[in-house]
Amino acid sequence: MGLEPPRVVAQLRELQQLTGDENGAQRVAWTETWDRARDWLDGLLAGLPLERERDEAGNDWWTLRGDSERAVLIGGHIDSVPSGGWLDGCLNVVAGAEVLRRIAAAGKPPVTMRLVNWADEEGARFGRSLFGSSAAGGSMRDQDELGRLVDRDGVGLPEALAASGIDLAHASDAQAQLANAAAYLELHIEQGPVLESMDIPLGVVLGTFGVERSRFTWRGQAAHAGSTPMDKRRDALAGAAKLALHIREIAAEVGGGAVCTSGGVVTKPGIVTSVVETAEQLLDQRHLGAASLARLLELARSAATRFAAEENLEVEWERIWSIEPILFDETLIGFCDNAIAEVAGRSHRLPSGPLHDAAEVSRAGVPTVMMFVQSLRGLSHTKLEDTHDADLELAVQAFDRLASRTIEWVAGGGGR
Amino acid sequence: MGLEPPRVVAQLRELQQLTGDENGAQRVAWTETWDRARDWLDGLLAGLPLERERDEAGNDWWTLRGDSERAVLIGGHIDSVPSGGWLDGCLNVVAGAEVLRRIAAAGKPPVTMRLVNWADEEGARFGRSLFGSSAAGGSMRDQDELGRLVDRDGVGLPEALAASGIDLAHASDAQAQLANAAAYLELHIEQGPVLESMDIPLGVVLGTFGVERSRFTWRGQAAHAGSTPMDKRRDALAGAAKLALHIREIAAEVGGGAVCTSGGVVTKPGIVTSVVETAEQLLDQRHLGAASLARLLELARSAATRFAAEENLEVEWERIWSIEPILFDETLIGFCDNAIAEVAGRSHRLPSGPLHDAAEVSRAGVPTVMMFVQSLRGLSHTKLEDTHDADLELAVQAFDRLASRTIEWVAGGGGR
Repeated sequence: MGLEPPRVVAQLRELQQLTGDENGAQRVAWTETWDRARDWLDGLLAGLPLERERDEAGNDWWTLRGDSERAVLIGGHIDSVPSGGWLDGCLNVVAGAEVLRRIAAAGKPPVTMRLVNWADEEGARFGRSLFGSSAAGGSMRDQDELGRLVDRDGVGLPEALAASGIDLAHASDAQAQLANAAAYLELHIEQGPVLESMDIPLGVVLGTFGVERSRFTWRGQAAHAGSTPMDKRRDALAGAAKLALHIREIAAEVGGGAVCTSGGVVTKPGIVTSVVETAEQLLDQRHLGAASLARLLELARSAATRFAAEENLEVEWERIWSIEPILFDETLIGFCDNAIAEVAGRSHRLPSGPLHDAAEVSRAGVPTVMMFVQSLRGLSHTKLEDTHDADLELAVQAFDRLASRTIEWVAGGGGR
Repeated sequence: MGLEPPRVVAQLRELQQLTGDENGAQRVAWTETWDRARDWLDGLLAGLPLERERDEAGNDWWTLRGDSERAVLIGGHIDSVPSGGWLDGCLNVVAGAEVLRRIAAAGKPPVTMRLVNWADEEGARFGRSLFGSSAAGGSMRDQDELGRLVDRDGVGLPEALAASGIDLAHASDAQAQLANAAAYLELHIEQGPVLESMDIPLGVVLGTFGVERSRFTWRGQAAHAGSTPMDKRRDALAGAAKLALHIREIAAEVGGGAVCTSGGVVTKPGIVTSVVETAEQLLDQRHLGAASLARLLELARSAATRFAAEENLEVEWERIWSIEPILFDETLIGFCDNAIAEVAGRSHRLPSGPLHDAAEVSRAGVPTVMMFVQSLRGLSHTKLEDTHDADLELAVQAFDRLASRTIEWVAGGGGR
């Protein structure tokens, strides 16, 4: 029984029927719809010689024992944002199940194969993403803070976890699951416009961007729009406007795929009859290289200082969040590149802007790679999210080749 | 009994004691504190040979009959914004009372002299400014809309007017008050930084700015801050930022005291992880010349069209309010200039950014001029509003000279 990529597409549509509505996918973690999706996934794998386990963080594992205990992991997440798309997350686990079925049908493999459905990747209900993978990866160190999270109905995260049989205090015990992990593979839709713009169906992910998030606060002087001549003004909006435009030059100067976004500016008093006294500006900067990321931030800060002087303003900034870049494994990147080139003719290497469970596994020291399949119009987290069926089928084929090559490598002593 | 400028300053401080608190002046129209201020003003004029009248719009008039019925009017307003300054509005009526006292003491004047305390210049309680002067000037044509105004406690304007004995339906009957008006004079603090920056105590007001208020709406595409390369973005904030900076060049190009203000920008979705999809930008443009004002707006619109093309955005605009410029009387401007130069050594001609009751009287066809006295730090509508005592005294002196010259002019057949 060989690989059947069209079946993956059919199963994804079936899942959407079962757990979506006219507004899109509704598989929000820690809800009944999510449970229904998890049960459905179990059904896909029924009858295969797999060990089934739910770990302390709510991650579901299916294990095909091989000659060696050292394991190749395939991971994804079946949860979605509210009114999400039909592919984000679930593509990974449904394609992974198909690959596992193909391998199991060929007899006992040389190394152990495991599929994991990570719990609550999206963080849609409680605002904390990568729940299950951060528990298993060992980076979940904020249990006190997690214990205080509530959803918009006032239900606490610990209470919602308990309803699923999970004890927050023991979630990190899931780290034991990675003890024998030699390599980790994840397939995902791109959620961006790059592959479509290049007319390439599949790409290799080099890693996940490091992120620097800052809030710049510009302070000038409120003044009457009618009685204050232009040369007597200290307009806080002018500082924010200059930086909003200049971040494009900063990104171009640093290069290497750098992105900078001024996601919002809030002006006070914000009325038509007054020069802006205070402007609060959000800045998000991302890069795959730690030094380049630091340079992006440095250039933004020095430009802000210069603009404040030009406009006779005060400016200050605070870091509101940051995460270092995660670089995927070079050997696995090579395998992924080859698998894509064999199946699709050509490949493209690109960074991932969004975070993924793969970043948590990689941070835990497991050699990791991700494969991206083209997203139409770059849309995700909406029911409009889509990918051509033909590209999905190519993705399953290429991902299966990547899995085979990785098994060989680990069997030969490669991986962790 | 000659003019006593220091008495005006002392009376203004007395009024502040009586009707202000630690947060500033509290003489909001249609409140008990305002009534107390109006009664106090009556007291200042007690004993003089004046006819006292309250018209249908709540304006208070004191009339000193002269040889001719043709009248020179001095006007101001004793109402203030909540927690306002000690000079805005009341300077005019208190100085006017002193001038009237000086003229009355000299015997029957050749023309009639009238002092008017306009009702509700600020519009602080119901959001409609220039209530009394627009009723008398004839521009109050929105009685239906006025009838629906409510304060923040839910009290309707008609109800509040009735408590002061005013019937909204008959407020416009106050127009009869201007029947014999030959000229109108008003003294006010500048409420801006121009005179202070030139170190000149007094200035002649050329008129009140015309205003064009617009809302520009920029539309791009929301996109993930991590997965969207810089060259694939349609950032609505970029359009708003370019216009916010470019309005300074537009004001400089048109010149003649032009001012342009981008008082606020609202971004959507306004989150750190998304490129801005929509930016709503408020624009306020002012000029003393109608053609120049039209040119300011035209330049802003053509720049917006250009920026939208550069940034691959859509842009649209709507006019949210506009008023034409009001030019004061050239003869009276000359009298005012001379009076200032005689008293203060030198004068300066400047436009008024804020509107004033004088604009309503001027629009009604009465030859009008205003005199400004320097404001410290350009501050107004705050308890920090201030002017040097010496400058206030100079203002009373110069304003008295202006009144004398205007009386001569009207007596000789000048004015309306």
